Amino acid sequence: MPVGTQATVKSLRNEALDELGAQILLGNTYHLYWRPGHELIRKLGGLHKFMSWDRAILTDSGGYQVFSLSELRKISDEGVRFRSHLDGSEHLLTPEKAAEIQLALGADIAMVLDECIETPAPRDKAEAALKRTAAWAKRARAYFVECANRNGDLPQWQFGIVQGATFADLRRQSAEQLLEIDFPGYAIGGLAVGEPHEMTCEMAAEAAALLPKDRPRYLMGVGRPEQLADYVGLGIDMMDCVLPTRAARHACIYTSEGRVLIKNSRYVEDQRPLDPECSCSVCQRYTRAYLRHLFAAGELTAAILATHHNVHFYLDLMRQIREAIEFGNLVKFASGVRARYAAGPA
Amino acid sequence: MPVGTQATVKSLRNEALDELGAQILLGNTYHLYWRPGHELIRKLGGLHKFMSWDRAILTDSGGYQVFSLSELRKISDEGVRFRSHLDGSEHLLTPEKAAEIQLALGADIAMVLDECIETPAPRDKAEAALKRTAAWAKRARAYFVECANRNGDLPQWQFGIVQGATFADLRRQSAEQLLEIDFPGYAIGGLAVGEPHEMTCEMAAEAAALLPKDRPRYLMGVGRPEQLADYVGLGIDMMDCVLPTRAARHACIYTSEGRVLIKNSRYVEDQRPLDPECSCSVCQRYTRAYLRHLFAAGELTAAILATHHNVHFYLDLMRQIREAIEFGNLVKFASGVRARYAAGPA
Repeated sequence: MPVGTQATVKSLRNEALDELGAQILLGNTYHLYWRPGHELIRKLGGLHKFMSWDRAILTDSGGYQVFSLSELRKISDEGVRFRSHLDGSEHLLTPEKAAEIQLALGADIAMVLDECIETPAPRDKAEAALKRTAAWAKRARAYFVECANRNGDLPQWQFGIVQGATFADLRRQSAEQLLEIDFPGYAIGGLAVGEPHEMTCEMAAEAAALLPKDRPRYLMGVGRPEQLADYVGLGIDMMDCVLPTRAARHACIYTSEGRVLIKNSRYVEDQRPLDPECSCSVCQRYTRAYLRHLFAAGELTAAILATHHNVHFYLDLMRQIREAIEFGNLVKFASGVRARYAAGPA
Repeated sequence: MPVGTQATVKSLRNEALDELGAQILLGNTYHLYWRPGHELIRKLGGLHKFMSWDRAILTDSGGYQVFSLSELRKISDEGVRFRSHLDGSEHLLTPEKAAEIQLALGADIAMVLDECIETPAPRDKAEAALKRTAAWAKRARAYFVECANRNGDLPQWQFGIVQGATFADLRRQSAEQLLEIDFPGYAIGGLAVGEPHEMTCEMAAEAAALLPKDRPRYLMGVGRPEQLADYVGLGIDMMDCVLPTRAARHACIYTSEGRVLIKNSRYVEDQRPLDPECSCSVCQRYTRAYLRHLFAAGELTAAILATHHNVHFYLDLMRQIREAIEFGNLVKFASGVRARYAAGPA
């Protein structure tokens, strides 16, 4: 899922996302809550209509940004109290409030509020957070179903989120707690926040093994190109990451041969496309020398072209992963990508 | 002509310019001389190939930016000596050098080097600058024809530039001097730099009346929407202006009803397109409320969408002006645009 934090994928028109074949975007509830505000979006007909995007949207709960961006946060069983990073005003995010905001936004998939903790975390802290996360999931589901019943049907798919830090048994326990509540889809959160890739895989595997095969399994906030196939191999169906778009704005281009840091002087006269094997519209028309120039000159067009290419690269990588599954050679495919990415710049 | 200063129209992919029907772009020699450098562009096959644009390009002489951006400039009959605004290095721009750089860039239309002076200017200063401008035009043409003869044909249309500040007789004198040299097209420079619109029109009219009807007449660096028809009425065929693109980045939208300052809170819930009468792809898909949000949130996509619309507005305005000429009602058309633009914000 390309990330459309503030109701846009940075530097891409929706027309570009149409061309790229994006089927679903992620919107950030925390950001949309502040700007333009979920009540305004509700009033204007929901996020799809507001941003003129008729394919799927997933919104997160806002919790992750409250924990990472806001000031003076104070967690209790009720919810999390925090100050706006914009104007200092005080707010309270509860499981019910997170569900309510997301109902107003009206995305296709909504996430429950969970407690995000820093890793590595001591076991007692992880256990306490997990207990709260489980209680919050139950409240979020109850609130959501009650609201939905008032309106006659369930307007969104609400996903639970497996937590448990880096403790395998806590991950399993969390998955079981959520299965009892019964969600139409399940996410795995609190990973890829600094721990080694092997640990991420181990924790994701513990959870994924327990989650039902016929419901989406979503690993939140990943990943690097060389990691995606690993996650899919563990049973992950959905991922989101700012990497392709953020890296693009910093002149880091993903290619079939690995990362290309396009500002490097070696590309000054390079008349090849960003990726000679890429079929995206940027690679059909523009050269590395031109992209390098646009970045050196500080032109907005640089971000537009690089982002377009990188999002194509990620979506195409996922298409290739699906193909590798069909042909039964996912493991080989994964190691091929890893080798190409190990050789180049980080 | 949309302005593509550094080999891109800021925040527009060439695909957008294709869609908008842009037939010609302006590139700035001064900027391209520094970044990526004219020798590199020559080596990579010229500006068209470098930026992947196969319709027409016009490059200016670089003189205007030398006079307005560079430090420690010193003018003599030889040329203008100046320091780079980037690294402080010293450079000399002569009429021959300006022609040579533009031959390297390889645009379809190139401009001679002229001396730009601040206005209002005293008559003696304007006369001295005009004398130098005439001498430089002669040298530029001679150099260009000599280079071209070496290569067998004239690779570009080289335009002379009428100067003369705000003195009608100097403007006439300048036009006559250029006619003697015989250029395939003529520009009128040094206007719209602070003097009243009526003065711009008067000076443009003096020059245009003497310039041949069968050769392009190009008024440099104009103009506001409500002024374009006036200039066309004086016999002007070509114009360039950063206004549509620069205003777009500052959230100023041109519409059939006048300027819309889209950040204004009155547009928070406005679900109409930027311009209800506009046929551009931005107006077909996005609302004012959404554009306002994108600007408020500081999203790059705001500049992309606003620029696309504003360039469409300008190109469409020119189409309407051509139509008004065909129907014989240009004067009425001009006063209609003026009235709509007088009512709204500046």
